[in-house]
Amino acid sequence: MINTEVYSDDRGLGYGDGLFETLRAVAGSVPLLDYHLERLRDGAGRLGITYPKAEIRQALVTALAASPNGIIKIILTRGRGGRGYSADPANPPTLLVRCFPLRVPAAHCYERGLELGLCDVRLAEQPRMAGIKHLNRLEQVMARRQVDANGWDEGLLLDDLGRPLELTAMNLFARFGDCLWTPSLSGAGVAGVMRQYVINELAPALPMTVQVSLRPLSQLRLADEVFACNSVAGILPVRKLAVWQWPMGEVTRTLQDKVRQLYAESQC
Amino acid sequence: MINTEVYSDDRGLGYGDGLFETLRAVAGSVPLLDYHLERLRDGAGRLGITYPKAEIRQALVTALAASPNGIIKIILTRGRGGRGYSADPANPPTLLVRCFPLRVPAAHCYERGLELGLCDVRLAEQPRMAGIKHLNRLEQVMARRQVDANGWDEGLLLDDLGRPLELTAMNLFARFGDCLWTPSLSGAGVAGVMRQYVINELAPALPMTVQVSLRPLSQLRLADEVFACNSVAGILPVRKLAVWQWPMGEVTRTLQDKVRQLYAESQC
Repeated sequence: MINTEVYSDDRGLGYGDGLFETLRAVAGSVPLLDYHLERLRDGAGRLGITYPKAEIRQALVTALAASPNGIIKIILTRGRGGRGYSADPANPPTLLVRCFPLRVPAAHCYERGLELGLCDVRLAEQPRMAGIKHLNRLEQVMARRQVDANGWDEGLLLDDLGRPLELTAMNLFARFGDCLWTPSLSGAGVAGVMRQYVINELAPALPMTVQVSLRPLSQLRLADEVFACNSVAGILPVRKLAVWQWPMGEVTRTLQDKVRQLYAESQC
Repeated sequence: MINTEVYSDDRGLGYGDGLFETLRAVAGSVPLLDYHLERLRDGAGRLGITYPKAEIRQALVTALAASPNGIIKIILTRGRGGRGYSADPANPPTLLVRCFPLRVPAAHCYERGLELGLCDVRLAEQPRMAGIKHLNRLEQVMARRQVDANGWDEGLLLDDLGRPLELTAMNLFARFGDCLWTPSLSGAGVAGVMRQYVINELAPALPMTVQVSLRPLSQLRLADEVFACNSVAGILPVRKLAVWQWPMGEVTRTLQDKVRQLYAESQC
């Protein structure tokens, strides 16, 4: 049993006590669905929220029929609760599935690349919640306010020690010679589905080794190419961060094409 | 203009993009109302959320008429938003005000005191959001799960460096000789209304000086008395943390009486 409506006493609203996923549908299917559901199930396990597998599958069938080429947003919360942090484990979770029209960055962003700014807000280290896509996203909201206020395309978020972690809604990769690097998100940040797809499938097929670690911001300047990704927009080159600049790189273009194929192939 | 209902696209639900207050009403008024509204306004200012002063006052009048001796919970969010962290500043905020029956700890807790456990989850340092009562409360939810699983009365939360900050839903004080100490919450934690009332009004009237700082956990063992507080429960002695024990202290009892007077006087 699940709730399929939101009430004012939902713990998702009261405490951000839940998770979400944003899926891109292509011709009635979701190319990276298994990655999304794996992360959602992992997050539910870590927070101790019931994972209503059958209901999620059923809701996705309905959503895909209604919006075969759109964006599908899933919110899963611990359900309704009274007042206070204690949850009644007998209460069913809340599952909300909504459809949005597809909206991707302008075409020139895929060619010329993104111009980033450096966000003032740092991502706090919280290993217990790192990586999962939970509903406690005030850091990203505050960072995005700065991005919008400054007219940047996106903003780079650093950890407490000033090391790059991610953008407000995208993950970060940089190529250093024959090594593709992406920040470790074991302390903070959202481990994106497209990032995982690059690590697990696209990079090994190039072939290219992937290094997942933390590096000082200053090293990013030395990168041969930099790109950002998420499962809605795909892969976008990063052209600029403040005064640093990078060219559109070969690996970025190759990966971009592969993601375009993934999304186009699903249309057949 | 404000929303007074919650929709599935509310940013409070989607990102925990909002604030809350939990008020104790006594005979149709809220003794610590100014402290609550000051914190709510401060939080709204820090997050850049519109503070609908007149609507809050009006909603409180209605709530107090319906529930003159209960608990009133206010949730203020940035309002509705589409998909994505960017908010449209033209969108009105959402204000939800709900009433609950008064529920305070059992009488013996006020006499014998609370038995605390030490929570595994640490409060991450995030100075940009420290002190305010925002809706990103997964750390408290996880901590409370451990409290409930272990049958403790409450749980002590530490910072990254192992220094005491607060309990899951109460603030902490300890007396060391003639100094009343409470943890600094400039890096993490919720600066409670009752804590502020003790600092601003009750302690100076004893008179007793208050020290707000961070101390190692080991120092807590040396305290002469320890107590916890919030605006619903008032003041409760802390009897035990794991194997450490403290007696019910004179200052705790005096402050307890003063808060009882505050709540009783409001009933006249």
